This record gives sequence, C-alpha cells and structure tokens, in this order.
Amino acid sequence: MRIVILGSGNVATQLALSLKAIGEEIVQVYSPNLTNANNLAEKVAASAISNLAAINTKAELYIISVKDDAISAVAAELNHVNGLVVHTSGTTDLSILSDQVKRAGVFYPLQTFSKSRNVSFRHIPICLEAEEQDLILLRELAGKLSSKVYELDGEKRKVLHLAAVFACNFPNHLYALANQILQQHNLDFDIVRPLIAETADKVMVNLPDNVQTGPAIRGDERTMDKHLKMLSNLPELQEIYQTLSNSIKITHK
Amino acid sequence: MRIVILGSGNVATQLALSLKAIGEEIVQVYSPNLTNANNLAEKVAASAISNLAAINTKAELYIISVKDDAISAVAAELNHVNGLVVHTSGTTDLSILSDQVKRAGVFYPLQTFSKSRNVSFRHIPICLEAEEQDLILLRELAGKLSSKVYELDGEKRKVLHLAAVFACNFPNHLYALANQILQQHNLDFDIVRPLIAETADKVMVNLPDNVQTGPAIRGDERTMDKHLKMLSNLPELQEIYQTLSNSIKITHK
Repeated sequence: MRIVILGSGNVATQLALSLKAIGEEIVQVYSPNLTNANNLAEKVAASAISNLAAINTKAELYIISVKDDAISAVAAELNHVNGLVVHTSGTTDLSILSDQVKRAGVFYPLQTFSKSRNVSFRHIPICLEAEEQDLILLRELAGKLSSKVYELDGEKRKVLHLAAVFACNFPNHLYALANQILQQHNLDFDIVRPLIAETADKVMVNLPDNVQTGPAIRGDERTMDKHLKMLSNLPELQEIYQTLSNSIKITHK
Repeated sequence: MRIVILGSGNVATQLALSLKAIGEEIVQVYSPNLTNANNLAEKVAASAISNLAAINTKAELYIISVKDDAISAVAAELNHVNGLVVHTSGTTDLSILSDQVKRAGVFYPLQTFSKSRNVSFRHIPICLEAEEQDLILLRELAGKLSSKVYELDGEKRKVLHLAAVFACNFPNHLYALANQILQQHNLDFDIVRPLIAETADKVMVNLPDNVQTGPAIRGDERTMDKHLKMLSNLPELQEIYQTLSNSIKITHK
C-alpha cells in the first residue's frame, strides 16, 4: 500500500517504521520542519516535504499524526486527494476529517510512544473508525501490524483515551514521585524496579481490584499516619497520598 | 539452615516456598490458626503449631512474618531461643525485636505478594538489618535467594516502604480506576493491558521523569478539560485527575 505520513513525532515515527517493516511503501513524509521530515523519511526510504502543496496525490492512505490541534489545518490541505485520510488521535472526532476530505477514518494505536524506543505493534491495540467501505482497508492494514484490532466510535475512543491516562500517564508519574522520595534519601530507583514490573505483570492475568495490596486496603491507619508524617516536607505528595489512599478505602470498603 | 516460619500470610507463604526450593529446612510453621499453619506446613514438609509454647527452640533462624502490629506479641514468646529472630516488615523498627529476643534482625523482601501467585525471589530486593555477626548469616541466605541484597537501616527501610506505596499500591489502584472507567462504557480491561505493560517496561531502563507522556506534560488544557467533564459523574476520579495532572505540571514546569 502506498502511504503518506503527515507528522514526524513519536507516533508518526514508530508507525512509519512498523509499516515499512511489514512491507508497506511509505512514499512521502511531511513535516512543517524539513529537517524532521528528512530524518524520518530517510529511515523509511521516502521523500520528504515541508509544504503540503507538494503532497503526493496518488497514495492510497494518508496518516495524519500531528498534535491534536494541528489536525484540522493539515486535513484542509488534503481535500483534493482520493486516498483515505486518517488521524491517529484518541481524543479527536472523525468529523474533523470527514468535514474536509473525501474519505476519512481513524487509526488510533493505544500505546505510549517515544521516538527513541522502538516498539513492536504486534500487541498494541489499534482502534479503527471509518465508513464501512474504508474499514476494509484499515482492518487489513491494522491486522497486518497487530493482533488486537478494535472498531470503536469516537465516544468510546475518548473513553479509552481517558482510561489510558489513568493506566499509563498517572502510574508513570507515581513512579517519578517514588524516585523523588528515594533520591531525597540517597536510595536508587533501581531498588523499586522489580516491584514496578511485578505490579504491572500481576494485572496481565488478574483484575487490579483483586490484587490490591498496601496499607490503605488493609486499613492500616498507623502506617498511613507514619507515611503522611514522613511526607510533611512534601505537601504535594502528602495530598496525593491522602487522595489515593482514600480512594482505595472507598473502592474496597 | 533450620528455619521456623511464624506466619502463614502472603509473605510467609512465598518466602517459605522459596526457602524450601533452595534447599533450606523449614522445621516448623506457626500460625494462631492451625488450619492455616497446616496448609503452609504441608507445602514445605514442616510441622505445624498454633501455640508458641510448642516452638522448636533448636532452629538457627526464626522468621516472623505476621501483621506489623502482631510482631511484638510473637517476639515476646521467643525470648528464650538462641537462634536469630527476624521480621519481614518494611515499617517496623528492629528494636521491637531486639528489646525482646537474644539476637534480632530484619529480612525485608520488597515485593507485592499474593498467596496464589508464586514469585521467583531471584530479582526481588531483600533488605537486611542486624548486628554485624548476624548479618553474615542473613547475607548468605539472602544471597542464595536473590541477586539483589541491600543493607539498610530502619529509617531507609521506611523510606523504601513509602516509595513502594507510590511505585506499586497507587499505580495498581489507578489501573483499577481505569478499569472502572472502561466498564462504565462496556470496554474490556484487556484493551489497556499492553499499555500498562509498556509503561512499566519503559522505566526498567529509563527514569520515569524522562518518559512521561500524556496531556498534562504537554500542557494540553483542552484535552484535560474534556477529561474532567467526562468524569463529572465520578467526582472522586475527577479529584484524582486534577491532583495528579497538577503534580505532573509542577514536576515538569
């Protein structure tokens, strides 16, 4: 399939690399910054452009993977192409594309991406949305990349994106706070890494409610009081400790 | 080494199984509930007791692995044994033992344990505390179980326990909240499992501050406003969303 990638960030990069790896043809990479476009284009043997007037109009699929608030402006320049135009955003309606382009869809990979960390799409859920005739193409492509393909409307996709903040962004920040506590006492983050790994591993086969541990679920007020006192010089962490402990107590009461 | 296990909960069970597996001799298991004592004793070919008057006084090591507030009462019954008496608690001072028994120590494995989920101790950090002459024995035993042995005083052990709440108990609860959001919209928890796995995996080689993603670190106020609106029927989750997003913004400002 001939594909144009619009964007050069984390998602665009990982998606382009994976599509190339399964044998798709990336014909062009667009970024308003030509250096960024070139960097990614080189990795996937594509040409690079920084001006949408030079867009290749013969591709079958255009993947817009830019910041949410830039999607609309990019789509406005694709109103003349006959290929399918998709975005990769969890929070953006399909209509932002379908109002502007001939054929519109969503191709949302649910994962936390970094440019420098290559990931396999094999187990990454890919969430699709499009008119039925265009879903065929997206299903085929998504199915080649991943074993987990979902068809979700915009509302459910937004719910999923919100859940992902709780499942990914917030836990990562809590890891960072753990590290802050450790560093204050010259302890290395490495000491909690096995614990983090096991905590995530446990919920691969269990539901998290069934494997909750710690002072809050035990109702161990003495330990919680001690912890709050230890955090007295970090009022922000104290508030988080209190809020999350209360929530655990409410959930499991 | 001849070992007595005092306790039959998650930590006692996993520790007894692992000690047995590396060839140590578990001579006795104590629990105030004889059925529980028997259940664990059977698994490790030990005898079971529910009365501390029947304690085997010839063991080299006594591992007290009971609820924190029950440690002292158990230790009080071990004042006549010559072997080393350790507890496995992150938050409890060594003095609670050393005030009562002849030789006291701490053997604290930093992990989240379940009775039903067998874990390998190989990569579980074990934190030791004891007088130098007793540390020799603990180092040897811990080194057979795990590749990660630390010697920490009580203050640092408590810090570690607090950090573990942030690194394990709180993230697991956030997984549970993600599941709550998904369930409200008939979406399966399975869809976020790969994201949870990758989020934990990322910090095995990175520090969490360097791999934070999501709307809060991007300063994407529009998405955060949308998310807060979506949570309007779940005020408790709204508060958590706000508190953690603010903390991410402060950390990365």
